[in-house]
Amino acid sequence: MSEAIKLLEKWLKAEEFTIVGKSIDRVDAIDKVTGKAKFMEDYMLPGMLYAKIVMSSEPHARIKRVNVERALKIPGVVKVITARDVPGENQVGYALPDQPLLADGKVRYHGEPVAIVVAETPETAAMAASELNIEYEPLPAILDPLESMNRRDVLVHDEIGSNIAFTTKVRKGDVHKGFQKADVIVENEYRTQHQEHLYLETEGALAIPEIGGMYTIMSCAQYPHLAQAITARVLGLPTNKIRIVQPYIGGGFGGKDDTGPLVAAQAALASHLTGKPVLLIYSREESFRIHCKREQSIIKYKSGATADGILTAIDVKIIMDAGAYANRGPFILWRATMHASGPYHVENAKVDGYCVYTNKVYQGSFRGFGNPDIQFAAESQMDEIAKKLGLDPLDVRLKNILKPGMTTITGQMLDESVGIGEALRMLAERADWRRKRRMYEGDSGRYRRGIGLACGWHGISTSRGVPDWSNAIIKVNKDGGVEVYTGITEIGQGTPTTSHVQIVSEILGIPTEYITIHFGTTDAPDTGATHASRGTSIGAIGVLLAAAKLRERLTTLASEMLQCHPEELKFENGRIYSKNNPEKSLKWKDLVNEAFNRGVELSSTGYFHLPKGKFDHEVGQGYAYPAYSYIINIAEVEVDVETGIVKVIRMWPAIASGRIINPKAVEGQIEGAIAQGIGLALMEKLEFDEKGAIINPNLTDYVVPTAMDMPKIEKPIFIEDLFKYGPFGAKGVGEMALIPTPAAIANAVAHAIGKRIFELPLTPEKVYFKIMGRG
Amino acid sequence: MSEAIKLLEKWLKAEEFTIVGKSIDRVDAIDKVTGKAKFMEDYMLPGMLYAKIVMSSEPHARIKRVNVERALKIPGVVKVITARDVPGENQVGYALPDQPLLADGKVRYHGEPVAIVVAETPETAAMAASELNIEYEPLPAILDPLESMNRRDVLVHDEIGSNIAFTTKVRKGDVHKGFQKADVIVENEYRTQHQEHLYLETEGALAIPEIGGMYTIMSCAQYPHLAQAITARVLGLPTNKIRIVQPYIGGGFGGKDDTGPLVAAQAALASHLTGKPVLLIYSREESFRIHCKREQSIIKYKSGATADGILTAIDVKIIMDAGAYANRGPFILWRATMHASGPYHVENAKVDGYCVYTNKVYQGSFRGFGNPDIQFAAESQMDEIAKKLGLDPLDVRLKNILKPGMTTITGQMLDESVGIGEALRMLAERADWRRKRRMYEGDSGRYRRGIGLACGWHGISTSRGVPDWSNAIIKVNKDGGVEVYTGITEIGQGTPTTSHVQIVSEILGIPTEYITIHFGTTDAPDTGATHASRGTSIGAIGVLLAAAKLRERLTTLASEMLQCHPEELKFENGRIYSKNNPEKSLKWKDLVNEAFNRGVELSSTGYFHLPKGKFDHEVGQGYAYPAYSYIINIAEVEVDVETGIVKVIRMWPAIASGRIINPKAVEGQIEGAIAQGIGLALMEKLEFDEKGAIINPNLTDYVVPTAMDMPKIEKPIFIEDLFKYGPFGAKGVGEMALIPTPAAIANAVAHAIGKRIFELPLTPEKVYFKIMGRG
Repeated sequence: MSEAIKLLEKWLKAEEFTIVGKSIDRVDAIDKVTGKAKFMEDYMLPGMLYAKIVMSSEPHARIKRVNVERALKIPGVVKVITARDVPGENQVGYALPDQPLLADGKVRYHGEPVAIVVAETPETAAMAASELNIEYEPLPAILDPLESMNRRDVLVHDEIGSNIAFTTKVRKGDVHKGFQKADVIVENEYRTQHQEHLYLETEGALAIPEIGGMYTIMSCAQYPHLAQAITARVLGLPTNKIRIVQPYIGGGFGGKDDTGPLVAAQAALASHLTGKPVLLIYSREESFRIHCKREQSIIKYKSGATADGILTAIDVKIIMDAGAYANRGPFILWRATMHASGPYHVENAKVDGYCVYTNKVYQGSFRGFGNPDIQFAAESQMDEIAKKLGLDPLDVRLKNILKPGMTTITGQMLDESVGIGEALRMLAERADWRRKRRMYEGDSGRYRRGIGLACGWHGISTSRGVPDWSNAIIKVNKDGGVEVYTGITEIGQGTPTTSHVQIVSEILGIPTEYITIHFGTTDAPDTGATHASRGTSIGAIGVLLAAAKLRERLTTLASEMLQCHPEELKFENGRIYSKNNPEKSLKWKDLVNEAFNRGVELSSTGYFHLPKGKFDHEVGQGYAYPAYSYIINIAEVEVDVETGIVKVIRMWPAIASGRIINPKAVEGQIEGAIAQGIGLALMEKLEFDEKGAIINPNLTDYVVPTAMDMPKIEKPIFIEDLFKYGPFGAKGVGEMALIPTPAAIANAVAHAIGKRIFELPLTPEKVYFKIMGRG
Repeated sequence: MSEAIKLLEKWLKAEEFTIVGKSIDRVDAIDKVTGKAKFMEDYMLPGMLYAKIVMSSEPHARIKRVNVERALKIPGVVKVITARDVPGENQVGYALPDQPLLADGKVRYHGEPVAIVVAETPETAAMAASELNIEYEPLPAILDPLESMNRRDVLVHDEIGSNIAFTTKVRKGDVHKGFQKADVIVENEYRTQHQEHLYLETEGALAIPEIGGMYTIMSCAQYPHLAQAITARVLGLPTNKIRIVQPYIGGGFGGKDDTGPLVAAQAALASHLTGKPVLLIYSREESFRIHCKREQSIIKYKSGATADGILTAIDVKIIMDAGAYANRGPFILWRATMHASGPYHVENAKVDGYCVYTNKVYQGSFRGFGNPDIQFAAESQMDEIAKKLGLDPLDVRLKNILKPGMTTITGQMLDESVGIGEALRMLAERADWRRKRRMYEGDSGRYRRGIGLACGWHGISTSRGVPDWSNAIIKVNKDGGVEVYTGITEIGQGTPTTSHVQIVSEILGIPTEYITIHFGTTDAPDTGATHASRGTSIGAIGVLLAAAKLRERLTTLASEMLQCHPEELKFENGRIYSKNNPEKSLKWKDLVNEAFNRGVELSSTGYFHLPKGKFDHEVGQGYAYPAYSYIINIAEVEVDVETGIVKVIRMWPAIASGRIINPKAVEGQIEGAIAQGIGLALMEKLEFDEKGAIINPNLTDYVVPTAMDMPKIEKPIFIEDLFKYGPFGAKGVGEMALIPTPAAIANAVAHAIGKRIFELPLTPEKVYFKIMGRG
């Protein structure tokens, strides 16, 4: 491992770059805008069958009988699959082993998959699914998490004996003493809502039987090796019998991290039981009803501060509605808990988190992963403290902002890579914060402007004290073409085709057209998931190391061939030459060819296992993440006080996320994240009826931002606070800009109308009633 | 490299085996017999187009014009492609740069691809191909290699200035003195014929445009990385833009080594120019006419021996008909030249080889690669010497047979792995050679029996003094499932799914169901071709090394976990335990899981570059191959003297090819090779008309052996003369049993009828006329 750390350090210290830090285009861009790109639904195979999910019509019920006879009589219906047909384990729970692939004995939410119908055409499958007669014995459904926490008589999971799936804790310092030192105490309850991922493409999988009982599964999962593992478990096979590959994926945002593997397993199960290729594509309604959602959170937040705005203590209680299954809920809660302070220093902190079962669609990964909820609360609190103390919210933040040498609420010492203070000062200046803040103060008239600020932070990697890792394989072909294998997926973010390519291009000194990244496949060693903003920051460490190892080998050879010291050599634009004597030069192609002839190995693996920190879950103290990315958004809004409509006019983002490998890609991530943050802030919300059924499972009733809702987004400020293990020092960026967006907008709205709304989304109704004093 | 040699040595010395040496079934067997296996033609993609080759109707002509207008007017025709449309290099020559992918300016054989028609249906493509009007200016065609050698007025390749494409030489000792020492001199001319591979499945490729200008090509090529390189060259792209994968392949025998990459490039070209997936499948007639063939050879062979049968000298001239393009011809000739003595020691040798252009379909790889031709001559000579001296042919062979410490005709000292002497003694005994030989002597009546013996040898790897190499990647999944990536292909021989699996199973001590071999793909590093009997002997060295490296890492971890010395540990059946104290044990799964958690890398590459020997091509002296496999067949025949029909009654094979990893697979190879050898010996022959057109390009007129023609094949004798670089000491087996089969049968026929036929095949006509004294 020390070799890996040495190589990472060497490239972290690089100062001159050819391509790192430059904006390059994604190779899929043209395919996508010209419609050439193929998504799951564009694939067919001869003799392929079509699968359709039969969903539960009940939120909570025992399954008495599944009557398949009528469905099976329909010509073209090949198979009806229920829990009893699963040859391996019908268990796909993530954090806890509580979730079946197909409901077994009991259903726990409206929309839960109960059966799979397989037929020769999609139409026949749909007809048969509607003919499937499932007899239920209804049970009382429990929909409200606060109610659910305290009930023992109705249990979502009988065997668990409580509706609380998981709890988390942070205990730092002495909160009681901290509040005693406070000159001001602010205490509020915040609520955030269920958000739908609404990827352009719904979930799907195509399972193909292959040689010797193997299956190739074309999958939209954000983590191919997890799809492989879950599918293998469901089929009762070792993982080597399952190969996962990916077509283009029309968005993921976390939803396909959780649901993708389940859909892969469902399609594979249907293929396994019929012996045919099977395509399963969720309809939009199925996607809405079945797949996990951003959780509903209820956050009770008490903050204490001195008169000059220094935080003295926080006491936070987070209740998250897990829905019917724990899934990633415990880990989402864990992340929210560890980030509860916001990116600020506070000596005394107490946080308690509860992940609570209800009979609703289950909680899952969604860009930000619990963090937008808690930052909404924490950043609203900062403004409330400022308000109470009569201070500028910027100053309160600047006084508490994290700096190297400080500790987080988990007691983790931040010894490097904390660029948020600088980012905050620069951004406030760029946005003309102080002038605008004063200017809009007490605005009157129908259209009122406000400017709001929110910070965010996000621990790099999945962590929880469990070390993260990275893996990649690179092979160099005889003509100098380079092929990279990674499990990192392309879900629209563009990482594999930009930053990964740039890393290899930089290290080997070759043009990007000589590099192909084979991504999203189990043909690569397990690279972990494309989530947690780790695609480049962690995912590409392996790529860097594999390239760096090849570079070392080829440097030795080139220095022999050119008769010069290895340190003299530069690899650039497909040429290797001596910096001291540029006439000593050879082509990349020729170097590779010579390596081939001399028996220098031209394949290499890149592997890194991040050092393990200590974490004590009992008190929530320790090394929570190897580093943090930081983000700040300043939002300027205009509120129509007659309609309550909030229009976001302008956003200024700043990000401190280490080395920016491809500025264009990062800008794209920031813009997309802000769009989703605006949805969460202003309009998106899943609504449930009294049976826990989603009543707006379609694009008409579930409102998301369109291009017309987008503000002018200013060019982001990049603070390159390098992270020692990241590739060239990169940290994560994918989720960042979403995290503080609802808080920034809420703070701007509060600034505009002089009143705070504590519950997202800030719909026109809520804003209007708040203005009217009725909210 | 020394680490690799140490690991190879360690496993070469292994003495106890769990699975190596045991017969295991191929995983594709059931898929194939049940029809579940998918071959090229079973694949389709939405929007796929169909390509059809337009072949030259002339053996030698200038192309004046290709009139595409009429073809393009047919509805559904998308494109007509000719040489001028090739965006990269229209050059696919192998040994020499003499061959275009599509004829450019000139055609050189009847059947040569001139154009590709691409259409929406196969029927339209066929119709358009027949409507394509190509105007030729005929040139004199030269069909006979002996004539061609001496003509300067008609050149197949104007730019080469001679019809001799390549020459080879061996000069050992002093042939003149050798013949002076001889008591007997035997001099004859032998002829062998063009043989068609006649794989069950013809050649094909499916090219699919992918992300960012990449192509995935489903290819039948025996060397995916060559198909990648050639396709890239034709399209003018770096190799990383081309990915080769393989479906099941219905036989290769060398033909798909040479032609597979060209068909891949043709399909890719059509896909590149139309932007659509394109399927190209050769019809049976196209396959016959277009693809390379086993060469026609004319061999003048002069041998000298002492009265007691010791060889004193050989002087050999080999003329091979290369056909229109050199292709592998020079290397086929080279192999024949180096093996010209047969597996015998001879102090004085002179061999001259000529690879000669004619206007016929070109020479190419075919199981045995020039060796069946030369062994037919060499082994006929041995019998003729014995006859002249009144000795038993067995004794003449035993007196000259190669032993460790002897040198070959290239002066290469054989210091290990020469098991043929022992094999010959054992086989003669098993076949009851001496008794039968005497018994059938002077047989009379209509049905006459004869028994014949022939030895063969075959240098391991492609060599020619160029070092061979091996490559593989192995990754272990978290659940202990193991995936292996190799470029070695499955062409019906079963290697990747048997011997490769056994090697990994043995080293990691896990059941075979935990191992998947992903074969025939450029996702593996370049493993070289599946030819030259190197699939296991060389191809699997990388697999062994990658597994051995993982085993070393996991041994270190297991010895820590079990608190015992690494030497004590045994890996067996998914368990790791101390031999001294079997209660100290853990499961493979748990070991892997612990490795995953502790950061032990679970991927590894395996690479080996065989040591380079010296070879002087001027005199044909030096290190020709790293080792040789040896083979002996004894054939018993029955000749119907009234019809000339030869029936092979029984065959006894013995093979000295190092470690036998899977006896069943080796037996299968021996049986298949004997079948093809019988075809070559008795019936198969391509016939050409005066325009060089094949007149029997179909399964009616081209006669091959069927099950009814097969003799009883006795269980082979295996002599495990270990090869130090082979996996567990394995050498090659795939081609072996074909090599001496024609000679053994010819010798048996000569024994039966008392007269020798010097030209293959021994058709009833030839045998009858020979018996009648008219041949």
